[in-house]
Amino acid sequence: MSHPHPELSDPPEPPEGGLRIVALGGLGEIGRNMTVFEHGGRLLVIDCGVLFPETEQPGIDLILPDFEYIRDRLDDIEAVILTHGHEDHIGAVPYLLRERRDIPLVGSKLTLALLEAKLAEHRIKPVTDMVVEGERRSLGPFDCEFLAVNHSIPDALAVAVRTSAGLVLHTGDFKMDQLPLDGRLTDLPGFARLGAEGVDLLMSDSTNAEVPGFVTSERNIGPVVDEVFRTAQERLIVACFASHVHRVQQVLDAAVANGRKVCFVGRSMVRNMGVARELGYLDVPDGIMVDQKELDDIPGDRLVLVCTGSQGEPMSALSRMANRDHSIRITERDTVILASSLIPGNENAVNRVINGLTRWGARVVHKANALVHVSGHAPAGELLYVLNVTKPANFVPIHGEWRHLRAHAKLAALTGVPEEGIVIAEDGVVVDLVDGRAKIVGAVPAGYVYVDGLSVGEVTETSLKDRRILGEEGFVSIVVGIDSTSGKVVAGPEVHARGAGIVNEDFEEVIERIEGVLREAAGDGVNDLHQISQLIRRTVGKWVSDNYRRRPMIVPVVVEV
Amino acid sequence: MSHPHPELSDPPEPPEGGLRIVALGGLGEIGRNMTVFEHGGRLLVIDCGVLFPETEQPGIDLILPDFEYIRDRLDDIEAVILTHGHEDHIGAVPYLLRERRDIPLVGSKLTLALLEAKLAEHRIKPVTDMVVEGERRSLGPFDCEFLAVNHSIPDALAVAVRTSAGLVLHTGDFKMDQLPLDGRLTDLPGFARLGAEGVDLLMSDSTNAEVPGFVTSERNIGPVVDEVFRTAQERLIVACFASHVHRVQQVLDAAVANGRKVCFVGRSMVRNMGVARELGYLDVPDGIMVDQKELDDIPGDRLVLVCTGSQGEPMSALSRMANRDHSIRITERDTVILASSLIPGNENAVNRVINGLTRWGARVVHKANALVHVSGHAPAGELLYVLNVTKPANFVPIHGEWRHLRAHAKLAALTGVPEEGIVIAEDGVVVDLVDGRAKIVGAVPAGYVYVDGLSVGEVTETSLKDRRILGEEGFVSIVVGIDSTSGKVVAGPEVHARGAGIVNEDFEEVIERIEGVLREAAGDGVNDLHQISQLIRRTVGKWVSDNYRRRPMIVPVVVEV
Repeated sequence: MSHPHPELSDPPEPPEGGLRIVALGGLGEIGRNMTVFEHGGRLLVIDCGVLFPETEQPGIDLILPDFEYIRDRLDDIEAVILTHGHEDHIGAVPYLLRERRDIPLVGSKLTLALLEAKLAEHRIKPVTDMVVEGERRSLGPFDCEFLAVNHSIPDALAVAVRTSAGLVLHTGDFKMDQLPLDGRLTDLPGFARLGAEGVDLLMSDSTNAEVPGFVTSERNIGPVVDEVFRTAQERLIVACFASHVHRVQQVLDAAVANGRKVCFVGRSMVRNMGVARELGYLDVPDGIMVDQKELDDIPGDRLVLVCTGSQGEPMSALSRMANRDHSIRITERDTVILASSLIPGNENAVNRVINGLTRWGARVVHKANALVHVSGHAPAGELLYVLNVTKPANFVPIHGEWRHLRAHAKLAALTGVPEEGIVIAEDGVVVDLVDGRAKIVGAVPAGYVYVDGLSVGEVTETSLKDRRILGEEGFVSIVVGIDSTSGKVVAGPEVHARGAGIVNEDFEEVIERIEGVLREAAGDGVNDLHQISQLIRRTVGKWVSDNYRRRPMIVPVVVEV
Repeated sequence: MSHPHPELSDPPEPPEGGLRIVALGGLGEIGRNMTVFEHGGRLLVIDCGVLFPETEQPGIDLILPDFEYIRDRLDDIEAVILTHGHEDHIGAVPYLLRERRDIPLVGSKLTLALLEAKLAEHRIKPVTDMVVEGERRSLGPFDCEFLAVNHSIPDALAVAVRTSAGLVLHTGDFKMDQLPLDGRLTDLPGFARLGAEGVDLLMSDSTNAEVPGFVTSERNIGPVVDEVFRTAQERLIVACFASHVHRVQQVLDAAVANGRKVCFVGRSMVRNMGVARELGYLDVPDGIMVDQKELDDIPGDRLVLVCTGSQGEPMSALSRMANRDHSIRITERDTVILASSLIPGNENAVNRVINGLTRWGARVVHKANALVHVSGHAPAGELLYVLNVTKPANFVPIHGEWRHLRAHAKLAALTGVPEEGIVIAEDGVVVDLVDGRAKIVGAVPAGYVYVDGLSVGEVTETSLKDRRILGEEGFVSIVVGIDSTSGKVVAGPEVHARGAGIVNEDFEEVIERIEGVLREAAGDGVNDLHQISQLIRRTVGKWVSDNYRRRPMIVPVVVEV
C-alpha cells in the first residue's frame, strides 16, 4: 500500500492519455465530498458537498472544498455529477455555481429536485441533466454509466467513468440492503459486469469499513416503530434526518395503522418531504397530514410530530423542547423517537437532548435502546462483496476518516487487490491512472474554505485561532491617549476585560503599573506608538499571568491626540 | 416516583430526629460527587469530587461543588468519607480543606494514599482516619459501617450510615465482577445482612443503569492484552487511566510474559503507580521498569510504554504522538492500545487521536475492536441483585445523568420498591428521611463553582457567556477620544476587530458612519459618554449585521481628553 508522503510537491503535467484524479474533499474526513477527474484537458466533477463544523471551527456555518485548483479552469468542466441528495454531496453546489452559473448538473430525479429546491433559496436556476440507472452519458471525453445503489436516501447512483485511460467505478455512498423498502437494490450484477469488463480503478465508500458484518434491513425497523406507536401513552415525536424519505414513510405507515395524524415540523423537513411527495417517492395517505396551527385541536394520543434535530442541533425544535423553550411542552406522557444515527461529533449535543427530554419524564427511544435506525453505509461484509465482484486492478478508498480508509484498504488487500495498486490518498493528493496503474504524483491545496454569515473564504485560520483564544481566555483591552508631541499620557489608561475572569476592581493596580512604565518610556523619549503598545502588552500580560495564571488576548490601543 | 419540582423552595428546619440528605454534586451529572448528611445538628460528607469541563465551559480547568450550603457550618462536619480514589470523588477535597484544614478524612489505605499525594501538591497535610472493610466508626451521631466493593480502582468502599432516623446504604461506585483480579468481591453477603436488618434508604450507583446484563470480568482482558503483545510488530504503547492499578498490572504481567521492559510516561501515571507499588497494590517484577531517558537504548520490540491520554487530552503524550509533536515518532511498526472506556464528551478528542495514530500507520487497538477494557460500573443485571438483597424501603439513585437516574428508578420499581419511596433528586434537592419515608422538602443552591487558573469561583456564568460569544463571533472595538468641553472627536475613531472575520480595509466605511453619527450627536449637544458609547454600539452593530450577518461583541471605548 502506498501512503501519502507528508512532503508531496506540485504535480507534473497531466500524463498524455492518462486519467488524473484529485479529491478536494471527503478523503480523511466525512463530509464535503468532491472529486475532480481530468482527461484530455477536460474536467469532470463527482459530488460537491459541505462539511459541518466542529468545536474547532467556532462560529463557522459551513465548510466548503477549496475550488482554487479548478478556479481558472471552470470552462473545462464538462459537468458535475451528484451521486445523491445528501448535504455532504450537494451542499457546496450553490457556491460552485456562483463562479460559473451554467455548469451542467447531472443526477437522478430526486437528487436534482432536492438540489433545485436548495438552489432556488440561493436564487439560482441551474442547467440540469436528469439520468436514471442504466443510462449512459458522454460528457466530453468521459463516458459515464450510472448504476443504482441503495442508501439512506432514495435514488442514489454509482458512476462508472470510461476513458481511454481505463474504467473507474465510483460507488458514491451505498449499502446493500437485500430487502430495500423501495425494492431498488444496489446493482451488484452491474458491478459484476464491470468486473468482467475490467475495472482499472475502484473508488468505494469507506464509512463503515471498520464495522464487521452486514447492515440490518430497513424492513426490520418498521415493526419496532409500530410497536413504539402502539405502546406510546400519548403524544409521539419522531426526530430524523430531513432527507430520510424511507424512514418518514415508515412513520406515516405506522401513523395510519395506529390512527394518528402527522405534522411535519421544521423548514427543511417540510420542504424535502414536499419534494419527495410531489415526485412520488413519499406516499402520503389522504387526510393524514395536519398543520402545526391545528395541533391544539388534536388529542396527544392521536398525533405524531415529525421533526429534525436528531443530532442535537441547539436551535432545532427538539433541542428547544428538551430545554422547555418551545410551545410544545414535554411531559411524562410523551414518547420521543430519535430515528437516526449519531454523527460523530454530536454525542454531547444528543446526550444533552436525551437528558433534557428525560428530565421532563418523556420516554426516549433511540438507537441504543431500540432498533429505530440502521446505517446507510455498507459495513465490511458488504464491502468485500463489491471488491470481489469488481476485482479492481487499483483501489482508492473514499468517503472516510483515516481510520476508515485504512480499514477499507486492508479489506482490499485481503480480496487480492495487489498491494502496489492500493492507494490511500487524502484531500488534495493527486493520483494519476497511467498504463493501468494508479500512482500518487503530487498534491494541490485542498484546505478548508469557511462560510461564516455572508462571507465565504474570508475567515482565515488566524481569525479562528483568535476565536479559540478569546473563547478560552477572553481579552483585556487597554486604551491610552498620547500627546503626539510630548508623548505624555493625556487620556486613560482605560482597561476593559471580557471573559477573562478579572473583575474591574482589580484594574487599579495594573493601571498604576502601566502609568509607571509609560512615564519611564516618555522619560527615555520613546514616542513610537508601536513600541508603546508593546510595552503595555508586556506589562499587562505579565500582570495577568502572575496574578491569575491566565493568558487572555491583550489588546493595547494607543491613540495620538 | 416523585419527580423534583422545578420550583422547589428553601427547605424547612431539619426535622427532629430525622436524617437530611443533600447532594451538592453527582445527581444529574457524572462527576463532582458530594453528599451531605445531617442529623442532630451534625454533618457527615460522603465524597468530594470534581467535574471535568465540557466545551460549554471554555477555558475552565475544573468544576467544584458549591460549598455555600455548608460554608458557615464547617465546624459541624464530623468527617468526609472518601469511597475511593477517583478524581470525581476526591478531587475537590483540597478546596474544601482550604476552608477548614482539620476536617477528618476517612477512607481506605489506597484512597487516602492517593489523596495525600494530591494534597501534598497543594501543600496540605490532612487529618486522616484509615478504615478497612468490615470496620465500624462512630462519627458523631453517625454510626458508619464500611463494606468492600469492586470497582475500576482497588480498595473501594460502600458505607452504611446508621442514625436514629434509620439505616442508609451508600454504595459508592461499584460493579460485581465475580472473578476480580485481587479476589476482593463486592460484599453482597454484607448487603444481604443489612437488607435483613432493614435498609431504610438505598443510594446506589446509576452510571450503567441503562446497560442490560452484567460486566465482563477483568480476567477476560488479560488474554486479549497478551495476544496484542504477542502480535505486536515492534513498540507497544498502552494508554489508560492513571488510577487503574489492575489494568496496569495486566500490562506488567504481559510485558514479563513477552520479555518487554516497561516505562511509565506522564506525571500522574508515575505518581499513582509509585503509591500503588509502595502499598503493595501493584506488583512490579524486579528489573522490568526502565526510565524514559533509557528508551533509545532499547529496541522497540522489547519495550512497552504506559501513558495517560486515553481520553484524547490535547496536552497528553499520546495526543502529541498522534500529531507528530512528540519525541516518540509513531510509525507503521507501532501498536497502540487504548485500554479505557470513552468518557462521554471525549468522543471527538479520542477519534482525533485514533485518526492521527492511524495516519502514521500505527495499529490502534481500542474498546471498539478488541476487549481491552470493561466498565467499572454495575449494569442493570447487577443493580437488580443489589436492590433485591437490600430490599430498601426507599431508594435514591445516585451517580448519573438524568437518563441514568430514571433508568435506575425503573429498576427499583420492578424489584418492588414502593413508588412513593423512589425519589429522583438532582443536585441541591433536599431529601428528608422521617418516619421511614424519604421525601423531597426543598432545594438549596448547588451550582457550578469554576476553577480557572488561580481563581476559584470568580469566573461567573456571565464571563463564560462572554467567552462563548467571543469564541463564536469575535469582537469589534471602537476607540474615540472626545473633547470634554466641546464634545468633539479629537482622536479616532479607531476600529479593531479580532476573530470577527472582518478585514481592516472594510473599516473605512464604518468609521465614516461613526464620524457622521458623532457629528450629529455633538450638534444635538449630546456629550454623555454612555450615550455616545450606545450610539457607536448601535451604529457598528447594525453595520456588521447588514454586511456580514454576524453578531460579534461590540466594545466601544470613549475616552475624554
